[in-house]
Amino acid sequence: MVRCCRLAGPALQDLLANIESVVFDCDGVLWYGTRAIPGAVQLVATLKAEGKRVFFLSNNSSGTRAGYLDKLLAMGFPAELRDIYVTAHFAATYLKQQARLEGKVYLMGGDALAQELRDAGWLSLRPDPAVRAVLLGFDPHFNYTKLVRAIDYLRQPDCLFLATNTDSCIPMGGGRLLPGTGSLLASVQCASQRRATVLGKPSPLMFQQIVRDCGLDRRRVVMIGDRLDTDILMGSRCGVCTILYFKNKERKGDKKKTDVPER
Amino acid sequence: MVRCCRLAGPALQDLLANIESVVFDCDGVLWYGTRAIPGAVQLVATLKAEGKRVFFLSNNSSGTRAGYLDKLLAMGFPAELRDIYVTAHFAATYLKQQARLEGKVYLMGGDALAQELRDAGWLSLRPDPAVRAVLLGFDPHFNYTKLVRAIDYLRQPDCLFLATNTDSCIPMGGGRLLPGTGSLLASVQCASQRRATVLGKPSPLMFQQIVRDCGLDRRRVVMIGDRLDTDILMGSRCGVCTILYFKNKERKGDKKKTDVPER
Repeated sequence: MVRCCRLAGPALQDLLANIESVVFDCDGVLWYGTRAIPGAVQLVATLKAEGKRVFFLSNNSSGTRAGYLDKLLAMGFPAELRDIYVTAHFAATYLKQQARLEGKVYLMGGDALAQELRDAGWLSLRPDPAVRAVLLGFDPHFNYTKLVRAIDYLRQPDCLFLATNTDSCIPMGGGRLLPGTGSLLASVQCASQRRATVLGKPSPLMFQQIVRDCGLDRRRVVMIGDRLDTDILMGSRCGVCTILYFKNKERKGDKKKTDVPER
Repeated sequence: MVRCCRLAGPALQDLLANIESVVFDCDGVLWYGTRAIPGAVQLVATLKAEGKRVFFLSNNSSGTRAGYLDKLLAMGFPAELRDIYVTAHFAATYLKQQARLEGKVYLMGGDALAQELRDAGWLSLRPDPAVRAVLLGFDPHFNYTKLVRAIDYLRQPDCLFLATNTDSCIPMGGGRLLPGTGSLLASVQCASQRRATVLGKPSPLMFQQIVRDCGLDRRRVVMIGDRLDTDILMGSRCGVCTILYFKNKERKGDKKKTDVPER
């Protein structure tokens, strides 16, 4: 049963009183581009001062955890490396802890993903019979040759197929869009006739990792995001309370709560 | 109501007696690669000797009509240029006759498509405000930069969006596959959030062009192909009788008839 309400004043206080951990989406909730959203730094600082644990969760596969930490600290957010969950780092964690990968990974993705795979000794950029997984992230150098190589690996049924996220586009302001990882994924899935395991939101995998790492009580977690199809859907799938943050469409500072959005 | 039967002997004679025109798929029906399928040249010659009109229809956007004519003649098929319908040439015909295009075309595709657009004065390879259509065919040089440019054009609602075909893969023998135009199309459609007008089979557009050009009586046409999802589906959508040609799965020379396959 879905129950939604506008969150302000006592309703917000009631909600937060029962909460131990807050999981923030980053882009569009804490910042736009390189500018913190007014009030966001103060909100995170207040939550932490009240003893709540704050996590930072992003589907963006172009950033390392260290890069996110630098960005958060530069904007004034109180943050720690262990509380940052991004798909590049999580891809390596997943391959190690869940998939227990033995072999190499064929990557279509950017520098952050390459660094994570290189650190784990998995990176394979040339044709390689040791490849046991294909990983797709945001790749501005995606091309037909990479697609050919990916589907050659994916012909092997035991070759894992992972994607960092399914966001079809990246909004660039002025109504302009850049193709997102989801649009590249559509191509690899169509050609390989296989579906990737998706690591980022709305998949529950990254949140499950936080629970595994930190032993959270799901009844005392709130997920705050600006997108129904990623942030709120992930929170719903994970059975946690969610807050949808509205930009533009509401008065400044308004927030909405969606307890159990459609799964 | 679907009615299927095995075609041989009298049943085949009965069918052909009533037929005026035969539309052949090419690859996998008349030839594999550069070798004519045994009996195919003789079949086409016999049909033509009996006064039937024979058309050659292909989704492959990598060939010009002249190239197809050369290939057909080199293998010994009796063929004429006017009876060859391929997506590269049809794309130009469609833009001229149906869309009545005024402006340029942004192409993701190979040499045959580029030649057709160049001949019509429509080819635009650089960013160009005169672009009014995006055309996608088989493009071994497909990349992220092209995808960015395509969705920039497709933001304009009056920009046409055409694709030669939706074949997800190209079988290469030995179980190997190359990504087909359909897999590139999946990416552009996902990023642009638009659906392309598909020119090739199973779209009825190419067959409708034959009818328009030659005034065929659909009740006296048979479509012969080796794929249910392109050839037979197109024939069914166009209301013509279809013959599904089986490779490998049946005894040599066996054919099956599918009168009204699922639409």
